[in-house]
Amino acid sequence: MNQTILQRNNVNISGKGNQYMIFAPGFGCNQSMWRMIASEFEKDYRVVLFDYVGTGNSDLQAYNKERYSDLSGYVQDVLDICEAIDAHNAIFVGHSVGSMIGILASIREPKRFERLVLIGPSPCYENKLPDYYGGFSKEDLTGLIDLMEKNFAGWANYLASAVMQNPDRPLLAAELEISFCSIQPDIARLFAVATFFADNRKDLPLVPVPALILQSNEDVIAPVKVGEYVHQSMPQSTYKLMKATGHCPHMSHPEETIQLIHEFLGILIVKDKS
Amino acid sequence: MNQTILQRNNVNISGKGNQYMIFAPGFGCNQSMWRMIASEFEKDYRVVLFDYVGTGNSDLQAYNKERYSDLSGYVQDVLDICEAIDAHNAIFVGHSVGSMIGILASIREPKRFERLVLIGPSPCYENKLPDYYGGFSKEDLTGLIDLMEKNFAGWANYLASAVMQNPDRPLLAAELEISFCSIQPDIARLFAVATFFADNRKDLPLVPVPALILQSNEDVIAPVKVGEYVHQSMPQSTYKLMKATGHCPHMSHPEETIQLIHEFLGILIVKDKS
Repeated sequence: MNQTILQRNNVNISGKGNQYMIFAPGFGCNQSMWRMIASEFEKDYRVVLFDYVGTGNSDLQAYNKERYSDLSGYVQDVLDICEAIDAHNAIFVGHSVGSMIGILASIREPKRFERLVLIGPSPCYENKLPDYYGGFSKEDLTGLIDLMEKNFAGWANYLASAVMQNPDRPLLAAELEISFCSIQPDIARLFAVATFFADNRKDLPLVPVPALILQSNEDVIAPVKVGEYVHQSMPQSTYKLMKATGHCPHMSHPEETIQLIHEFLGILIVKDKS
Repeated sequence: MNQTILQRNNVNISGKGNQYMIFAPGFGCNQSMWRMIASEFEKDYRVVLFDYVGTGNSDLQAYNKERYSDLSGYVQDVLDICEAIDAHNAIFVGHSVGSMIGILASIREPKRFERLVLIGPSPCYENKLPDYYGGFSKEDLTGLIDLMEKNFAGWANYLASAVMQNPDRPLLAAELEISFCSIQPDIARLFAVATFFADNRKDLPLVPVPALILQSNEDVIAPVKVGEYVHQSMPQSTYKLMKATGHCPHMSHPEETIQLIHEFLGILIVKDKS
């Protein structure tokens, strides 16, 4: 294993089995946010947790503005990790932009992945009317980036509540807010631009492996219409509308998330040799 | 470097310089809680962050009840890391029980450490009247452990607020509470017993290196009287009563904490060759 990459992306591997299960965080999140669901899979899979460079406990010295100016740098992080651990036919679980990062990684190197689990995926946050509803106007998104520059702490507080919903359990949004605040503001801003201004709609039909779409029932970041769009555009996809609300069902509704992933993993997949 | 230990304790090394600066978390804390102060030292030191086995993103497979039934297992974690990175004459910064773990490690292997920074140290939480005031009766401590068994979430919420104080900034206590809750309850309980029922008063005079004691001005976990006791018992100690309040000044009052550590590190220490 390439120890430099494992240190750079703070890769932690646990569990048993012959197959890797790789968990990719969403924007501003870190690997500890998988704790409510990841340990459930340790008895059957080699669970791989990591942080993108610039987030969590990654090596900040490895950060470079050019590489991470769009999602391709984050995609390369995932592929670098796959190479370092020699992953083939892995299960990939991505949250939010992590699911788009997995989609792009699977197109670049199909052999690495057997199937994808996509929690709250969105190929494009900006409305492209009249054809596409992403949930946000261009002004909404520009305003969010402006707020990051003017008042980073205020932005983190606002966005964390909007992302998490479930206000009856304030510790959930607090965890997200703390994670946002732990990222250097300039790194967080570039990651936000790369995330919220991406348009990867044309990539969805190219996904070469089966995928489960977990769509939260009420999600202001990736609304139901977006999940349905992803399902319609992605050939081998299964769509599940959850009872869960908010954009982080793996944190707020771990039991339902685990159950739906188990059901999907129970489906036999026969893959061409490649 | 021994990669097994580095993976086991989720060791992350960053920064420049010829000297290691090792940050040891307190009970129930994880390495990300050092982020407000650790990066400040990266320009002059090789900053080492880690999680004790059983906490943070450590390898849970390496946990074993016997090893971690008292502080010696946690001390061994630190010494294993020192061996894995070949640390000599390192700066050790410990928070709360992390500072006692550093004290015991320095007695076992003096060559590893040049000096210690102790944030809120307490050699004994239980009052041993009439000679010693630790701040807690035996019933207080037993009650805290009982609460962990009966209502873990309630315990985490209660203790986090008591430890952090500074209720005007609720995100600080929330971060601590989230960290407590991320530990498996049986591991957290054994760590709590090892921490809160320890009595290491007799070890203080044996500390072979200079130490800075950072005593918070108002701290219900390690009161001022305890900090003064540590100072009186430890031969080469410097005592600073901070303006900061609460038991986590490195999180709640990072600027003052950084300044006092810088002052201490600026003092020239001539050490015998050993």
